Amino acid sequence: MTTHGQGVSPADGASAGVKGLAPYKPGRPIGEVARELGLDPAGIVKLASNENPLGMSPKSVAAVQQVLAVGDARYPDANGHDLKQALAAHYGIDAGWITLGNGSNDVLELAARALVGPGQRIVYSRYAFVVYPLVAKAIGAVGVEVPDDGLGHDLDAMLAAITPDTRLVFLANPNNPTGTFIEGERLLRFLEQVPPQVAVVLDEAYTEYLRPEQRYDALAWVKRLPNLIVSRTFSKAFGLAGLRVGFAVAQPAITDLLGRVRQPFNVNTLALVAAQAVLADADYQQRSYALNQQGLKQLSAAFDALGLTYVPSSGNFVLVKVGDAAAVNDALLRAGVIVRPVANYGLPEWLRISVGLPEENQKLIDALTKILKG
Amino acid sequence: MTTHGQGVSPADGASAGVKGLAPYKPGRPIGEVARELGLDPAGIVKLASNENPLGMSPKSVAAVQQVLAVGDARYPDANGHDLKQALAAHYGIDAGWITLGNGSNDVLELAARALVGPGQRIVYSRYAFVVYPLVAKAIGAVGVEVPDDGLGHDLDAMLAAITPDTRLVFLANPNNPTGTFIEGERLLRFLEQVPPQVAVVLDEAYTEYLRPEQRYDALAWVKRLPNLIVSRTFSKAFGLAGLRVGFAVAQPAITDLLGRVRQPFNVNTLALVAAQAVLADADYQQRSYALNQQGLKQLSAAFDALGLTYVPSSGNFVLVKVGDAAAVNDALLRAGVIVRPVANYGLPEWLRISVGLPEENQKLIDALTKILKG
Repeated sequence: MTTHGQGVSPADGASAGVKGLAPYKPGRPIGEVARELGLDPAGIVKLASNENPLGMSPKSVAAVQQVLAVGDARYPDANGHDLKQALAAHYGIDAGWITLGNGSNDVLELAARALVGPGQRIVYSRYAFVVYPLVAKAIGAVGVEVPDDGLGHDLDAMLAAITPDTRLVFLANPNNPTGTFIEGERLLRFLEQVPPQVAVVLDEAYTEYLRPEQRYDALAWVKRLPNLIVSRTFSKAFGLAGLRVGFAVAQPAITDLLGRVRQPFNVNTLALVAAQAVLADADYQQRSYALNQQGLKQLSAAFDALGLTYVPSSGNFVLVKVGDAAAVNDALLRAGVIVRPVANYGLPEWLRISVGLPEENQKLIDALTKILKG
Repeated sequence: MTTHGQGVSPADGASAGVKGLAPYKPGRPIGEVARELGLDPAGIVKLASNENPLGMSPKSVAAVQQVLAVGDARYPDANGHDLKQALAAHYGIDAGWITLGNGSNDVLELAARALVGPGQRIVYSRYAFVVYPLVAKAIGAVGVEVPDDGLGHDLDAMLAAITPDTRLVFLANPNNPTGTFIEGERLLRFLEQVPPQVAVVLDEAYTEYLRPEQRYDALAWVKRLPNLIVSRTFSKAFGLAGLRVGFAVAQPAITDLLGRVRQPFNVNTLALVAAQAVLADADYQQRSYALNQQGLKQLSAAFDALGLTYVPSSGNFVLVKVGDAAAVNDALLRAGVIVRPVANYGLPEWLRISVGLPEENQKLIDALTKILKG
């Protein structure tokens, strides 16, 4: 650690948790892959980060442009007043129960930092979002990974894993990277059994992609579950991954604590107006949903035709078993298709493939077919 | 804390540090003051948050517009490759020594979270940026406030306050909210005396406002001081407070740790391009500096004329003693001028007034004159 000659550095004294952190590995940017493999960026398809293939809502773009026309250099509204009012009206919740985050990643961190101390336990499932164990490590908490129920969450095992020193449970529905889904009724029964002193972050980053018959209203559950924190994001169906907006909904006692550890200007001015605009863009939301349904069918049919095992997805991505995923991933990259290897999730035979535009999905399908059959 | 009837909540178990946090109180937004006092927002002048009165650089605006024209919904480049390259070229530093932050507030937090554990000490001066004690509390560290040297930093006392369990020193130059300045040579002598296992965050948020004869190059010092972290921001002279970009420069051992606790997408796509653009806008930077010098002279002359005590400022604001600052602040608000009371800094007789456009400064001067002489 001491590469600087003096033999001692503040870095030496960092906690074992921080030293042991492997930073989050995002999907590879198109520019980087193009540079590395000498490919034309315009010909590269990225299906690696579960982004919205429609691009930003035109209403988000217009809202940002309106702010730019003024171009003032002010700090953002630290309280996010207007966006919170819009969220409250849209979802029928209390604006005072909302915490805005710099993406939902920020919200997940705020919950852990506000509620969990060093040595205390955070429970999550195997094959859950990789940020959960990272967050636990960063604050010196003990991350408890509960064995899965065949790629899905084993809710009984998660309940059984809750000990007196457990402070927080992370649970995503639909889950990333698997795409598995827990029905609302079963989820609610689980939440009701979590001891009241243990907080649950229900991460609903992909909830907008649920089919009508799958939908449930966790935001309403918050009213009677004082230990529930529902996390949402504008990075997926709302098309604002580049602008970083997420939010948490929880009762005032928890919301108050999240506000204490939150950076005052965590969401920037342009992100605030872009989020408010897309929230009001029902047409864009409908198009995003429909395109995703279509893409899921397209990918599933192709994987069926190739005889590949995959997890029926409730999100905007599909986890598919391709055998030597590292080799297949390399071949896909050379063919100009970026997908997400998930070996770091303990799934070295699988790839996670985001739903793109129909022609992007087709490019992936063609390349994959050639690699597997070629 | 248990307002929800069940008598027990995850909030009860939060650490004393988090429970004891008073969230950062930002300068009041124009809209909020207008609503509350029934004033026309267009007539309100805000000199409360040390923002750049010129507004955003036209080059920043154009760069954001170019991204909007594409409107893609991708995640930001998690590594901030292009902005880091631009910073490296502009400042003659190594891109690998840079950590980007969601404003420099993020950088300050990253340093504390990466390097300081619960119960360890963070040293800073009295009348230093209020975020330092907040950051210490949030992570359960012990904040040590060193008595000032007549509103400035007592560097010898700060050195003496460093104990074996001290991990971090925060020091701003120029300092906020006082505007005091430590000459480069004296500062370097101090830094050289800090024990090598103790990190120093040198917060240079206002460094671009230094007069030519005051300037020194702390970024070059990083090369021989492995415990130095220099923090900079785009929120002040670069006019991007609304977009949230800051950065830290430190040797690889520390930079590596900051990267481990950093949220992968902490700086958004539009902020990245806006920062890169203004970095190349020498004209805007020159105009910002000149306008600030002019405004400092205008305010100082007026305070002299009013017989007010003030601290000669090296930043883009002036700390001025007005007596009953709460009452003067109320009267200024009613006159449509928002400034910053600093009672929360232990300075109940003072107001911090940001430098605005000449006509904004004049409105403040006229209102203040009327209040004090009226």
